[in-house]
Amino acid sequence: MTEVSKAAAFDRTQFEELMKKRFFFSPSFQIYGGISGLYDYGPPGSALQSNLVDIWRKHFVIEESMLEVDCSMLTPHEVLKTSGHVDKFADWMCKDPATGEIFRADHLVEEVLEARLKGDKEARGQNSNDQPEESDDKKKRKKKVKEIRATRLDDKTVEEYEFILAQIDNYDGDQLGELMKKYDIRNPATNGELETPRQFNLMFETQIGPSGGLKGYLRPETAQGQFLNFSRLLEFNNGKVPFASAMVGKAFRNEISPRSGLLRVREFLMAEVEHFVDPKNKEHDRFDEVSHMPLRLLPRGVQLEGKTDILEMPIGDAVKKGIVDNTTLGYFMARISLFLEKIGIDMNRVRFRQHMSNEMAHYACDCWDAEIQCSYGWIECVGCADRSAYDLSVHSKATKTPLVVQEALPEPVVVEQFEVEVNRKKFGPRFKRDAKAVEEAMISWPESEKVEKSAQLVAEGKIIVNVNGVEHTVESDLVTIEKRKHTEHIRTYTPNVIEPSFGLGRILYVLMEHAYWTRPEDVNRGVLSFPASIAPIKALIVPLSRNAEFAPFVKKLSAKLRNLGISNKIDDSNANIGRRYARNDELGTPFGLTVDFETLQNETITLRERDSTKQVRGSQDEVIAALVSMVEGKSSFEDALAKFGEFKSTQE
Amino acid sequence: MTEVSKAAAFDRTQFEELMKKRFFFSPSFQIYGGISGLYDYGPPGSALQSNLVDIWRKHFVIEESMLEVDCSMLTPHEVLKTSGHVDKFADWMCKDPATGEIFRADHLVEEVLEARLKGDKEARGQNSNDQPEESDDKKKRKKKVKEIRATRLDDKTVEEYEFILAQIDNYDGDQLGELMKKYDIRNPATNGELETPRQFNLMFETQIGPSGGLKGYLRPETAQGQFLNFSRLLEFNNGKVPFASAMVGKAFRNEISPRSGLLRVREFLMAEVEHFVDPKNKEHDRFDEVSHMPLRLLPRGVQLEGKTDILEMPIGDAVKKGIVDNTTLGYFMARISLFLEKIGIDMNRVRFRQHMSNEMAHYACDCWDAEIQCSYGWIECVGCADRSAYDLSVHSKATKTPLVVQEALPEPVVVEQFEVEVNRKKFGPRFKRDAKAVEEAMISWPESEKVEKSAQLVAEGKIIVNVNGVEHTVESDLVTIEKRKHTEHIRTYTPNVIEPSFGLGRILYVLMEHAYWTRPEDVNRGVLSFPASIAPIKALIVPLSRNAEFAPFVKKLSAKLRNLGISNKIDDSNANIGRRYARNDELGTPFGLTVDFETLQNETITLRERDSTKQVRGSQDEVIAALVSMVEGKSSFEDALAKFGEFKSTQE
Repeated sequence: MTEVSKAAAFDRTQFEELMKKRFFFSPSFQIYGGISGLYDYGPPGSALQSNLVDIWRKHFVIEESMLEVDCSMLTPHEVLKTSGHVDKFADWMCKDPATGEIFRADHLVEEVLEARLKGDKEARGQNSNDQPEESDDKKKRKKKVKEIRATRLDDKTVEEYEFILAQIDNYDGDQLGELMKKYDIRNPATNGELETPRQFNLMFETQIGPSGGLKGYLRPETAQGQFLNFSRLLEFNNGKVPFASAMVGKAFRNEISPRSGLLRVREFLMAEVEHFVDPKNKEHDRFDEVSHMPLRLLPRGVQLEGKTDILEMPIGDAVKKGIVDNTTLGYFMARISLFLEKIGIDMNRVRFRQHMSNEMAHYACDCWDAEIQCSYGWIECVGCADRSAYDLSVHSKATKTPLVVQEALPEPVVVEQFEVEVNRKKFGPRFKRDAKAVEEAMISWPESEKVEKSAQLVAEGKIIVNVNGVEHTVESDLVTIEKRKHTEHIRTYTPNVIEPSFGLGRILYVLMEHAYWTRPEDVNRGVLSFPASIAPIKALIVPLSRNAEFAPFVKKLSAKLRNLGISNKIDDSNANIGRRYARNDELGTPFGLTVDFETLQNETITLRERDSTKQVRGSQDEVIAALVSMVEGKSSFEDALAKFGEFKSTQE
Repeated sequence: MTEVSKAAAFDRTQFEELMKKRFFFSPSFQIYGGISGLYDYGPPGSALQSNLVDIWRKHFVIEESMLEVDCSMLTPHEVLKTSGHVDKFADWMCKDPATGEIFRADHLVEEVLEARLKGDKEARGQNSNDQPEESDDKKKRKKKVKEIRATRLDDKTVEEYEFILAQIDNYDGDQLGELMKKYDIRNPATNGELETPRQFNLMFETQIGPSGGLKGYLRPETAQGQFLNFSRLLEFNNGKVPFASAMVGKAFRNEISPRSGLLRVREFLMAEVEHFVDPKNKEHDRFDEVSHMPLRLLPRGVQLEGKTDILEMPIGDAVKKGIVDNTTLGYFMARISLFLEKIGIDMNRVRFRQHMSNEMAHYACDCWDAEIQCSYGWIECVGCADRSAYDLSVHSKATKTPLVVQEALPEPVVVEQFEVEVNRKKFGPRFKRDAKAVEEAMISWPESEKVEKSAQLVAEGKIIVNVNGVEHTVESDLVTIEKRKHTEHIRTYTPNVIEPSFGLGRILYVLMEHAYWTRPEDVNRGVLSFPASIAPIKALIVPLSRNAEFAPFVKKLSAKLRNLGISNKIDDSNANIGRRYARNDELGTPFGLTVDFETLQNETITLRERDSTKQVRGSQDEVIAALVSMVEGKSSFEDALAKFGEFKSTQE
């Protein structure tokens, strides 16, 4: 099936019914009415999540010897003020004063204008369904605007609407307010007038400690804790760069109005890698292991032309052609791709989309998202951003703590630069308690300013030094500014950060969608075809009937598998075997083991594979060995078929 | 060494120095000055934590087929109001209005009175160090009262102080306030007068969503999410009881003034099991597997006598004698004990202490804590509480959702009871919109009241029904109350909950203390003797020198081990091998593999065991096989010594 046909064939209602029935997940606090944007994972969802984290850890942390840390979620105001989140991690909302309802301003403008364009098309007798493919969760959102009236718009208005929609992400609150006024955008349900948009910070705020003085937030990402520990991590790595830290943990986002199920939630599991590199050398020494891998790319240039054509090419070529900036970014994109493939994502529905310059987070200088297609459209699941030296620099400045790498230079370097030297004897007494600040202000001047001031000092005998808006006059007997030579043995620099950031909850959701299908012969029951390595439970054990003779054998078989690290479940209910297997297909269990009367005689058991429903039969020990080998990914069911031959049973 | 001598020999300063130097953990946000009660785990601490969770999951969830879930941390007010946390999860604090300093009232009273008693002993010329063993973190706390003046108290006052200290946990805020007034207890540092104690809720509060209307908290325990999902979990378990759910996750407690390092923190990792049982049958069907296990018990009765003598006996006998209430509680106590042993806790420093009736949490009806001794005293690390039907009952009542088990009775039972039946035709028109409430009020009367009202109805022709304080008169033509017979086929009951609750962060800390020691020949460097299964890194790979010939071999060896799931670290620094091994002992890495010139000739390598520092040598494949077997706990280093013979090297 093609991507589009797969998405079309997918029945979300039926899928969600299965998710609920088998308790993969469900809304949190449901008996209290639920809270939107908060979900609980039941046993299969929770096991899937644990396995996902486990595979992630092996694929990234262990394989790359990353330095995993676990940092606090509660974060003081000061840290997130410095990082920029207090000021910039926000959306614009507007309130209906009559109903108290709150709308996210950009989404509302988008929904209303799109609805009007649709109404216009209907009025013009055009097929309004014939629209370009919609990304993300726009489809669902538009349902809010319930009645689309077939009202003809004039051509100029259509053009204006289309222009606005094309750059809807670029408006700030004032501009959104103006648009709402100009185009008379109101509460779609009641037609009530709305208040002007105001900024709503998306962090959950709380107070740390009893005195009420210490404002804090729940972290919006796990990255900050890693940056703050940079110096300890560098020391742990014996002072050597590049190295990567990593963290798996929950982060929080107080969405204005959460929707799209597990894709846009208020509490979510992330896994973030912060790879610290020399800004002058972003080469990755394992890039040659992946350079041949073809990736599906959607570069900025293609998007600027208004297109979504995928450019499929080896990542090595993409770096060579300058489409992807450097081999470290390329290496991680390839590793991300391998990870997604390993857990069972349909790789024909994955693309790497480069961020447009206006949509990047405030800290990023380049970013490629791994987007995965599901029934909600193309979903950003992994961001792979170059955060440059932004975070380390701002934290270093705010705390006056150096967050730098010091490297012995292979050969000493002679550096010539302008330097500021104060006359200690006179300078202190003259400026008293301002002395330190005035000196620091001069030292921190950029080279160009030092050159200028040096000349001024000679020419005018004094200079003006501005310290936080206060001007101080410094005479030439108090300070010398001149060019000097230095021999440097150490190079000091702030490393750049390449950050692959995984929304594990989103990945989990699209994985469940991709794994879902129904058998043509039984379209009412779903099958979840998870790879064995990530499946919540690896084996189902089914005794033929509730006959008491089976129980001891079943119990022993279960314990045996457990000891081998194979999670399993016994189903000794009195449903027939076919029903029990079908139930189990819904849980995504890859293998079923049947114990029957023959088992009691000769210790042979039957193994059924979920996707093909084919069976093999052999001695208990041989079948278990084959099962372990398949769960560990060392052999396939085809190998088992070749070894044992297919077994045809009449029991199912 | 005995317990006491071990605790005495332990040098906490040196230990903490090691923890910091090797980045096991450190205060969060340290470059911003830190926030007390919040810590970050560095790479070894974080790996230790992952391994701890992994072992916990295998030991409990997989072994017992528990239903693991992952529920939201953000929790709406209503849920925690019902559970009792909004009203009861609080401490008493008092403020110094002059300095703004805040004290936890009970701790302050305790510290000051203890300091005065100490001063009295000094004045009497007694050795004030000769005191009974102190529990928990009292020792550290007392340091706050800096100057202990040798002031003689009269005998009556000494008696009063001792009486108060013996029951310090029993006072409420008003009583603590009275004690402070009566005994003139002030800010120990400034002697300033303090405000009267007021209650401080220990939950972190926040707002969910933009409208500000939905108050929420960060969960204080993981249990509530499991209770709220009870019905789904029961269904997942095919309606059968007993079964257990489980969750591993962070919980939060806004301590008034955190201390004792990792033992009393504001954000911590928990693992909780909720085992749902029939209140009429708390037998566990696997109890016979553990009944022989001796446990170290400190029952309520012994404590009431003011003693701390350990009663060591098989858990089977403890249940038989009624010391431990039932086999389910007993089973979990034994399983907890096995878990602690598996991860490397010194079992001579573990005891199970039964809670006194006045110290139990508001939901518990019996509780045994696994306490572990460390340098801070005896620390509660696992609580094993019988929460009865408390939580399911209150949530069921608050949401009007049945949270019950329905079981087919083996034989139908005839039940005789009084029942209320209204005359629908007349009742509705008469009471209009109050009809439902009046009917429900009558139906919910207890049996005794129904008996009484039935008689009254016959005698007086009417009864009074009280609905939230409003009285309604109901005449006898509107309702019938009489004894009726029913045949019941289904038994409906609210299950009880046995809850083993693990403070994983605390367990991690005491484990690190227990694992720590120094070699007599090198007392300045620590060794952390973690069992291989939980050690952060399993093997260190050390090339003899930085000779370039070693690099390819070392790289391949590392990849080989990684593929076998053995986390490893290469140390190719130019420190000598002895130094590199010593550095590694501080990380608790159990095995070291040396690659030397002989390796290049014949592919043999040396394996060094951390605790004994003994070495063996063999072919690469044989040594790796032995290593894997030891890491998986299938063989010991003694086995390796027997196989290879001890190898004496002169290189170290």
